[in-house]
Amino acid sequence: MQLEHLPVGELAAGQPLTIPVYRFKGTSDAAPSVYIQANVHGAEVQGNAVILQLLQYFKAHPPLGDITLVPLANPLGINQKSGEFTLGRFDPITGINWNRAYLDQAVHLDDWYLLHGELPEPALFDAFRRLLIANCEQALANPWGVTTGQRLALNLQKLAHCADIVLDLHTGPKSCKHLYCPEYELSAAGYFHIPYTLVMPKGFGGAMDEAVFNPWWQLSDYANSRGRELKVAVSAFTLELGSQERIDLADASRDAEGILSYLSYREVIAQSIQPEVMSRFACMLKDYRKFHAPMAGMVEYLAEPGVPLAAGAPLVNMLRLDRVDAGTEVTKLSLNEDVIPVLHFASASVHQGTELYKVMTNYFTLSG
Amino acid sequence: MQLEHLPVGELAAGQPLTIPVYRFKGTSDAAPSVYIQANVHGAEVQGNAVILQLLQYFKAHPPLGDITLVPLANPLGINQKSGEFTLGRFDPITGINWNRAYLDQAVHLDDWYLLHGELPEPALFDAFRRLLIANCEQALANPWGVTTGQRLALNLQKLAHCADIVLDLHTGPKSCKHLYCPEYELSAAGYFHIPYTLVMPKGFGGAMDEAVFNPWWQLSDYANSRGRELKVAVSAFTLELGSQERIDLADASRDAEGILSYLSYREVIAQSIQPEVMSRFACMLKDYRKFHAPMAGMVEYLAEPGVPLAAGAPLVNMLRLDRVDAGTEVTKLSLNEDVIPVLHFASASVHQGTELYKVMTNYFTLSG
Amino acid sequence: MQLEHLPVGELAAGQPLTIPVYRFKGTSDAAPSVYIQANVHGAEVQGNAVILQLLQYFKAHPPLGDITLVPLANPLGINQKSGEFTLGRFDPITGINWNRAYLDQAVHLDDWYLLHGELPEPALFDAFRRLLIANCEQALANPWGVTTGQRLALNLQKLAHCADIVLDLHTGPKSCKHLYCPEYELSAAGYFHIPYTLVMPKGFGGAMDEAVFNPWWQLSDYANSRGRELKVAVSAFTLELGSQERIDLADASRDAEGILSYLSYREVIAQSIQPEVMSRFACMLKDYRKFHAPMAGMVEYLAEPGVPLAAGAPLVNMLRLDRVDAGTEVTKLSLNEDVIPVLHFASASVHQGTELYKVMTNYFTLSG
Amino acid sequence: MQLEHLPVGELAAGQPLTIPVYRFKGTSDAAPSVYIQANVHGAEVQGNAVILQLLQYFKAHPPLGDITLVPLANPLGINQKSGEFTLGRFDPITGINWNRAYLDQAVHLDDWYLLHGELPEPALFDAFRRLLIANCEQALANPWGVTTGQRLALNLQKLAHCADIVLDLHTGPKSCKHLYCPEYELSAAGYFHIPYTLVMPKGFGGAMDEAVFNPWWQLSDYANSRGRELKVAVSAFTLELGSQERIDLADASRDAEGILSYLSYREVIAQSIQPEVMSRFACMLKDYRKFHAPMAGMVEYLAEPGVPLAAGAPLVNMLRLDRVDAGTEVTKLSLNEDVIPVLHFASASVHQGTELYKVMTNYFTLSG
Repeated sequence: MQLEHLPVGELAAGQPLTIPVYRFKGTSDAAPSVYIQANVHGAEVQGNAVILQLLQYFKAHPPLGDITLVPLANPLGINQKSGEFTLGRFDPITGINWNRAYLDQAVHLDDWYLLHGELPEPALFDAFRRLLIANCEQALANPWGVTTGQRLALNLQKLAHCADIVLDLHTGPKSCKHLYCPEYELSAAGYFHIPYTLVMPKGFGGAMDEAVFNPWWQLSDYANSRGRELKVAVSAFTLELGSQERIDLADASRDAEGILSYLSYREVIAQSIQPEVMSRFACMLKDYRKFHAPMAGMVEYLAEPGVPLAAGAPLVNMLRLDRVDAGTEVTKLSLNEDVIPVLHFASASVHQGTELYKVMTNYFTLSG
Repeated sequence: MQLEHLPVGELAAGQPLTIPVYRFKGTSDAAPSVYIQANVHGAEVQGNAVILQLLQYFKAHPPLGDITLVPLANPLGINQKSGEFTLGRFDPITGINWNRAYLDQAVHLDDWYLLHGELPEPALFDAFRRLLIANCEQALANPWGVTTGQRLALNLQKLAHCADIVLDLHTGPKSCKHLYCPEYELSAAGYFHIPYTLVMPKGFGGAMDEAVFNPWWQLSDYANSRGRELKVAVSAFTLELGSQERIDLADASRDAEGILSYLSYREVIAQSIQPEVMSRFACMLKDYRKFHAPMAGMVEYLAEPGVPLAAGAPLVNMLRLDRVDAGTEVTKLSLNEDVIPVLHFASASVHQGTELYKVMTNYFTLSG
Repeated sequence: MQLEHLPVGELAAGQPLTIPVYRFKGTSDAAPSVYIQANVHGAEVQGNAVILQLLQYFKAHPPLGDITLVPLANPLGINQKSGEFTLGRFDPITGINWNRAYLDQAVHLDDWYLLHGELPEPALFDAFRRLLIANCEQALANPWGVTTGQRLALNLQKLAHCADIVLDLHTGPKSCKHLYCPEYELSAAGYFHIPYTLVMPKGFGGAMDEAVFNPWWQLSDYANSRGRELKVAVSAFTLELGSQERIDLADASRDAEGILSYLSYREVIAQSIQPEVMSRFACMLKDYRKFHAPMAGMVEYLAEPGVPLAAGAPLVNMLRLDRVDAGTEVTKLSLNEDVIPVLHFASASVHQGTELYKVMTNYFTLSG
Repeated sequence: MQLEHLPVGELAAGQPLTIPVYRFKGTSDAAPSVYIQANVHGAEVQGNAVILQLLQYFKAHPPLGDITLVPLANPLGINQKSGEFTLGRFDPITGINWNRAYLDQAVHLDDWYLLHGELPEPALFDAFRRLLIANCEQALANPWGVTTGQRLALNLQKLAHCADIVLDLHTGPKSCKHLYCPEYELSAAGYFHIPYTLVMPKGFGGAMDEAVFNPWWQLSDYANSRGRELKVAVSAFTLELGSQERIDLADASRDAEGILSYLSYREVIAQSIQPEVMSRFACMLKDYRKFHAPMAGMVEYLAEPGVPLAAGAPLVNMLRLDRVDAGTEVTKLSLNEDVIPVLHFASASVHQGTELYKVMTNYFTLSG
């Protein structure tokens, strides 16, 4: 195991910002390489505990493939306290979500494929990977500079593009575990110890997983359209490991085991680790809906994340203590269709319009 | 039941800030009057749910004494969101704790007692009460103005000084239920449904309960020193109803019942409501200690609020993911004496020096 | 003059959020109608002072066209204080810029034009305007709700779509006056009392001016492509009136006069008001560049907004008090091309990557 | 010149917080020693520029006395951005003012003087100084830990107690230059290049200057009461160097010269530097009054800091754009007595109760 402290920024008073990068050299050249990061959003700390478990595992069980583990991936976000909480979802200066600053590769495949399309797979993949990394380096070298968030994101993205498998460890606010999984690799969803999966289409919205899988997915489609069958060569997932502002070492062990189960299936590790048997459900990303508070008030959250909720069943009680004389002090809200609530807002009081819940609609069972 | 919307301030864009004040006229002139407020700290919302239960109770069971109920007592604090949380502990402009802006009455008892010391009890108490209220009004009329927090606090304090019994409903961050109770009235601690009590000495630190009981306590002491036996005529408590950012109507019923049990004992209500039987513990306020993080890191909170913790037993695991190479990635912290942890910090990552836990030391059992 | 208080939201503690809407009924049906709003970003207050001057003008000089004036357009943003400043650029909960929540109309012109393309101009414009307003209303009625920012933006956008001329009054951080002007109406830039203009292309990035002009510009292009010459029927501009956190009534008079000069030219008012003679410069929006701090430190801003800066001339001094022993305590930064600095960051200390300056490159003179 | 990086804390993600400490060894043992710090409040950066000038001076002109210079004294505060500003006045977690966490020495002089009162002056002073430093060290070693702010403050206070002259460099929000000067050393006010002085009484409110001079002042009083004439052996001042969020190297030179003028008078440096001739005014600290906004609104600040304002002269215009129909859109506020406005609030919109201005009342001329 090697540890490097990667510089990713500098604070006003002069302190360098660095992130720890742990590397294990794989014992087999044939095995896929892996990149795992955690805590890009400052309050979403549990991924660090999972990485801690993985570090201990790999120290005891040298992996076949190269492994890069990056906990505490956003020191500026982690250190940004506001009251008793961590204001780590967006840059406090610009408001930009720390997980939306990755580079949109936007490769001109017409030109690139013309030059490289005849290469054998390993050489083709290698050339494409080098292109993606070069694009990150070019962005970092912009003479007009890059934003604080871009500097961080581009440094992480460079590391991620080096790997065949990329896992980005997040959490929700008050949340059950769920997985963002690209549609082309839905079979992977059965290996992680996560019951709920959101199926992602091709496209780029700024997040790490998309930044990684999207160019490869486009390359695959392009080659297929030119008559060459080419799989999507790289895998990328976002794992949402429950609620934010929570460190639980025992639960981290369970999540580490799910990750190892996937890496076992992908032959990154020599040990055979079986996935946990559980019911798994999924919905398409477009069917993952946000419900915004139609009124302001104090909120009693009634629907538990991860427990299916029938149409019309109680979602929340909204309390309005300013309206007891009118007899409208409690409003029970529900939804008009069957859903699985995945997460809810962290605070128990909301302005009108606050995102109260995110729920899966039109969900279906994943075959085991 | 009457509802008044009391103006307590004005926002930059012109909106008035008001708080709802609910009043019940008691059926007996002899019964003590009661003032209960909730949510002076913006994230501490559960007291509103308790007041909701009390409102319903008093509507069904007209009280003997006058009752004033003030939920949502700090609209500016409640509405002050920062990320997914409520930054409602201190004024975001000045940093001043919303619960430290009450007026220090600092009555010159030498002068006042000379004029009023011979009055019979009711007249004496009435004159003193009028003085306290007049002091609040004078402070509000200061030609140099008062701060935003003082305007709020003085308006609440005026209401509170009108009552014989004052309850201020708060919560901790992640907390078990506990009570701040003045030493002269420790017997009251057995009526609320709260297992842990902090015994307060005479003195004024800025909080509502102290602002109310302190001048009466001083008056009682002064009279006693002049040879007249005078009880402390007014009761004031702060109830900490568990954790912040939580609304739970069922739990609010239990807390409302505890309050009614005390009011039953004080003959404010006609119904006989018995306190719940439970073990109750207490410590002196000076023995209620804060433990500050001796190092920074991710925190796994191991000690549960409300569960006694022996000296040397694990309090927290501190994770340092930047130090796995040195083998110092997990540090187990404990305390050197037997304590009852009462509350811990809300976030799972801390700077060095953050207040991790508040614990009772030298605690003792309260007789039932 | 009529005043309506338009509800645009509700705060957690129950307070309604309203914005004042002032209306003047024009004396002529032929004159264009006007919508002017200010203070969508909470710290950008000077537009309110300009609207105050316009209100007084229109009271004294009844306009030919209908006028709607909306100061204090974002009460939640205005009231959001953080320390001694107004954190009013983005929603403190979500991080979303208040000026990026307007509805992308995205009209399917193929379908719509088929049905309406033969109408005479007034009927065509009227039908299109009704469509845009209906789209806003439909978005507001979404059963899944809308965000706090969308509710505000959609209410404002409905008002704006009713007008022929839309002005959105903003400011920069530390800034000279500048104008965002759509390319199709660059001649208008000579009427406002603003020396610097950014020329906007067709497209939608989320801001009010784009939300208003973009569908009309698309309609015009579409009709032209179908062989019918159709001007862009609606005008929309963003005026940046100097620096934030500043109210200056005298300067507001000058800006009000510039606006009246444009309205005079458009025959919205009966009086003839001539534009101030001044040198006016412009650049294309793509040439309006951000310069990000290549290092952290204390900043002495040397280049004054509005004063052309030659390539290589001093832009800022970066101070690093932690490096005096190395002799690198002052770094002078400059740019590699001739620019006009338009604005700089508000704080004198920056993290690496902070947007230090926005500058016009490849700028050109606007003919008077 | 020696540079040490003093550790003062640790951030959640593991980064150490250090502050640069520059030391010059004096060439004469007889000369007083000096401690100067800057930027304890995060937005008050100009003192760093002054220290930069002093560093250059002392490199060129070795001082007679020992000099310790500490710029960037609060890295956590400096790095705490909120929007485009620095939220560096209070700990964002606790709300506690960074300049109120110094240790109240509260020496039991009865005991201490009994043991040391007969010592000759140098030995007496030396013993007392060792006691003050030992108290800081004991506080830092508290087994229950210290807060983040206390850790910083105690480390700075230890450095300060080593010196005979202590200068704490601050700024106001929008402010003219002013000096906090203890009453016993008012003659010093004529040496700094600062026209306005606030005369401080004995006592401790938590700030650095008080933490330093108060125990020595108490010692002097105590000795005098025991019949031994003892001067206050240590000098401490707070210099408010204009407005926050401003770096101006030229102005920093002027302030550095004022400091050198005082150090020349105190024979810390060999060069003779004369104070600038200017009118100087002062008032007692109790006459330094805060004026709180009696209403909310947009604020046009009319009274310029540092310019005397007659009773009744315009202080601010308060704008209320929500009240134009009622004709109460502009309210002119003034004060009832002659004052010198020293500083005003940084933002141009205020809630009711915001501290608008701080002004000197009952001011008097300091003789040159």
